[in-house]
Amino acid sequence: MHDVKKIDVMEGILDENDSIAARVKETLGEKGILVVNEMGAPGVGKTTTLKNIFSRLKNVKPYVIEGDIEADFDTKDLQASGVQTLQINTYGSCHLDAPMIEHTVGKMEFDEKGILFIENIGNLVCPAEFTIGEHVMMLVSTVTEGSDKPYKYPLAFEKADVIILNKVDLMPYLDFDEEFYMKGVRQLNPDVPVFKVSGRTGEGFDEVTAWFEKRAEEL
Amino acid sequence: MHDVKKIDVMEGILDENDSIAARVKETLGEKGILVVNEMGAPGVGKTTTLKNIFSRLKNVKPYVIEGDIEADFDTKDLQASGVQTLQINTYGSCHLDAPMIEHTVGKMEFDEKGILFIENIGNLVCPAEFTIGEHVMMLVSTVTEGSDKPYKYPLAFEKADVIILNKVDLMPYLDFDEEFYMKGVRQLNPDVPVFKVSGRTGEGFDEVTAWFEKRAEEL
Repeated sequence: MHDVKKIDVMEGILDENDSIAARVKETLGEKGILVVNEMGAPGVGKTTTLKNIFSRLKNVKPYVIEGDIEADFDTKDLQASGVQTLQINTYGSCHLDAPMIEHTVGKMEFDEKGILFIENIGNLVCPAEFTIGEHVMMLVSTVTEGSDKPYKYPLAFEKADVIILNKVDLMPYLDFDEEFYMKGVRQLNPDVPVFKVSGRTGEGFDEVTAWFEKRAEEL
Repeated sequence: MHDVKKIDVMEGILDENDSIAARVKETLGEKGILVVNEMGAPGVGKTTTLKNIFSRLKNVKPYVIEGDIEADFDTKDLQASGVQTLQINTYGSCHLDAPMIEHTVGKMEFDEKGILFIENIGNLVCPAEFTIGEHVMMLVSTVTEGSDKPYKYPLAFEKADVIILNKVDLMPYLDFDEEFYMKGVRQLNPDVPVFKVSGRTGEGFDEVTAWFEKRAEEL
């Protein structure tokens, strides 16, 4: 009984979410705004990734929506660097959804073409199930998490349009099996670009930034 | 409309989950089995934590239920070491629930008093919302995740009966602010024991194991 009702309601919610997501994507696309849905587990360096990209962006203006269960450290951090950043706190919900994004986008000023980076809740499961209006799904993964993650959390790796493999500066101190990791990624997503980076040293971020600038230009 | 129906259904599901969880806890408690719900984000070292505890347990027999979205690496790993381990694959669901545990427990043989460790899905959000019949909620956290996690994911830290802070061998290579981390933990959970450990070197696991043996004896 519970199960049947639950499925009906979930399908209704997903249909509604998807139609709002399509509207967000189209509206922002028409304004020249590339929408990026940034996913990854807690502590993989999602905000650090954004800061490294922003310090290298030349031709494109960044905008940010920060998703967190609670707290707003990252928003304050990004605002201090001069980037227009709005906070969404979900107070328990394990992912952002399209209605939250449409509401928040309505409060933002897009005075120039650019890229809207939406940092999703730190979670390798739920955010992969909900489109929020993105043109690009960016997955941040790290060598500290271990090399079996594509096998254990396949949906996020399958849906990614670009994968950031972060914290490579810690490689010498870990037993990360890069070949096994890449085999898992390629089984799910044969052509996705994978960038090896370090948020601490900045290694690899010139290439990541160039990739995003190109995507924004092609919009 | 969707929201109202959703809340009704969720309340029904939670009530049902909680009553099954109470039954699991009582039934296993009567058999002398301490039930531990092990939570933590992907890649924090949940299985490595179990292996370190098992190699040190003297007076208590371990049993394991392994939860994963997909794959069964950890189950095979633990079975190879001689521990009775059953796998639950959720194929998408972001947490284990009490009905899954009751079903799986029914297939296990508890021939001696001991501890049933249930490794939940790698996720710092959803598992904190569902009791699964545990006497002890163990949270595994790491220094590689950064020191702001208690502030961003408060429910898991608030509900923990014991916190494992793993990967301390990597401290010299990170900017982990232990004082800030502990301040966040203490605001949510003033008395919870926090054990600093390294799954790689084994550091700190004598104390963790002694804590669990004591809890099992007190059952």
